[in-house]
Amino acid sequence: MHLSSLASFTTLVALLSTALACDSCNGNLHRRAEHGGSGEGSGEGAGEEAEFSYLGLTGPVDWNQFAQACGDGKTQSPINVVSTMQTSAYGDSGEYADIGASGFNFTNNGHTVELFYKGQPAVLGGVEYELQRFHFHTPSEHRLDNEWFPMEVHFVHQGKNDPSKIAVVGIFIDTTGEKSDPMMERLATYLQSIGKVGDTVVATHVPLQGVRTAITNAKKFTYPGSLTTPPCTEGVTWYVSNTILDIAPKDYRAFKKVLGFNSRTLQADPGKQNIVEFAAQFLPSVNNRVQAKKQRRATKWTA
Amino acid sequence: MHLSSLASFTTLVALLSTALACDSCNGNLHRRAEHGGSGEGSGEGAGEEAEFSYLGLTGPVDWNQFAQACGDGKTQSPINVVSTMQTSAYGDSGEYADIGASGFNFTNNGHTVELFYKGQPAVLGGVEYELQRFHFHTPSEHRLDNEWFPMEVHFVHQGKNDPSKIAVVGIFIDTTGEKSDPMMERLATYLQSIGKVGDTVVATHVPLQGVRTAITNAKKFTYPGSLTTPPCTEGVTWYVSNTILDIAPKDYRAFKKVLGFNSRTLQADPGKQNIVEFAAQFLPSVNNRVQAKKQRRATKWTA
Repeated sequence: MHLSSLASFTTLVALLSTALACDSCNGNLHRRAEHGGSGEGSGEGAGEEAEFSYLGLTGPVDWNQFAQACGDGKTQSPINVVSTMQTSAYGDSGEYADIGASGFNFTNNGHTVELFYKGQPAVLGGVEYELQRFHFHTPSEHRLDNEWFPMEVHFVHQGKNDPSKIAVVGIFIDTTGEKSDPMMERLATYLQSIGKVGDTVVATHVPLQGVRTAITNAKKFTYPGSLTTPPCTEGVTWYVSNTILDIAPKDYRAFKKVLGFNSRTLQADPGKQNIVEFAAQFLPSVNNRVQAKKQRRATKWTA
Repeated sequence: MHLSSLASFTTLVALLSTALACDSCNGNLHRRAEHGGSGEGSGEGAGEEAEFSYLGLTGPVDWNQFAQACGDGKTQSPINVVSTMQTSAYGDSGEYADIGASGFNFTNNGHTVELFYKGQPAVLGGVEYELQRFHFHTPSEHRLDNEWFPMEVHFVHQGKNDPSKIAVVGIFIDTTGEKSDPMMERLATYLQSIGKVGDTVVATHVPLQGVRTAITNAKKFTYPGSLTTPPCTEGVTWYVSNTILDIAPKDYRAFKKVLGFNSRTLQADPGKQNIVEFAAQFLPSVNNRVQAKKQRRATKWTA
């Protein structure tokens, strides 16, 4: 490994460590106090301030203010996954044991509800990982041949031998009107207890067979992407499963009530110009303002 | 009315006439031929080109390229509707008769499925309107206290005495797991027949009592907004109903399969800076590019 690569990996690990421990990362993101107030972010309890939101001016278009990759990164997630994309090599497995009686923390961090189920082994693309956590988005962040889904769950992994390697497995969840996947049914029973930001409950006896099926030897589309929340760090390997979990409308509504809308705007295909950057270049009013600002600066400097 | 107001109303009518007759407006929007191809816009049949899409670089951030209001308008729709907003005056009514045996055209225009059910009377905010058409979005475009819904239907009206007045009623549709609203159940039966862009079927015997209930004397949040598709024309009076229609998962999935994702990014509150314009001003790379462009121009001009 070159020194420059090592340096960038170190930075990546630092950024990802921040992102991975979202329950303690408030100090690392620019607080959006000026955007706070009523109606801003369902699930963000009174008096709480979010570092970022999914709403209007405080939504994804704002993230580049405090996390540059969100505004000009070139391999940003989520994307529209198409059937012609590369799929993962045979032999993947997420061998997660069902969550037992001792349980794991299930937390509302104001952006999602997240389960810190660490240390479970997974092999993805021939690399050994350990699960760090998993969380939910409504509606889905990725799309599959342009179809969106009511929910998506993200299983975030860190390399076992190289902690700079991050792999996320995304699994779509669809409202079928039938019985929920056992994990979804079980987790839904906790949602009333974690309705406010910072609420945590210990989730026990969570069956994970549906997830294991969706990961182990299932067809998964893979691409180089990013975290879908600030700091939008790139260098993340994505695996989006073609196997979809079911959720009954009752459980789905329970999740949606707590999550609100927490899905980032669809990003451009990897390597294409960032969509925020793309939007900017065609705005004459912005260009005028930029020029006026430069003019003011120039005047000041020469005065 | 001042002459300047008259002029802007005339422009508005011209723009809205274009937008209202979307099955014939291809020539009025900049064609996005360079963005065409596989995977671009589900429901856009092979060989068809869309004027706009909901995907990545060709999605809502791109619309300002060919419709300036989408990029710098200040009363853009959709928005997050909050309980503290102004509600419509008592006495509103959408007296739509059920659609009978003669029926009305139900069309797939590549962006939505739309029913051209013209001439039905409605009174909104004390003004007489006539219904022009109604169409569907998945997921919902507006949100209600930050909660999004699986679908939203838009009833587009034109002033009876003043055709420059445009009022749109938005009604949320939620997946409940129970029986669908009769309109949704009936319309779902046609979706297989209009799976491709340009497909049209005559929809008959469509019951509209659920819609009438959601409009007539129901609580409706009102605000000055815009069309949610290019040209994003402003001057549209919005009424977002607090009464929600039900849809069973089976019918919901049938709609979603044809519509794909067709929901514009949430916009800023009325009067606030446009979100595309907002995003642009914080991008140093864009500013640099703008400056570089100006530099090149300056060099050329002085050479």
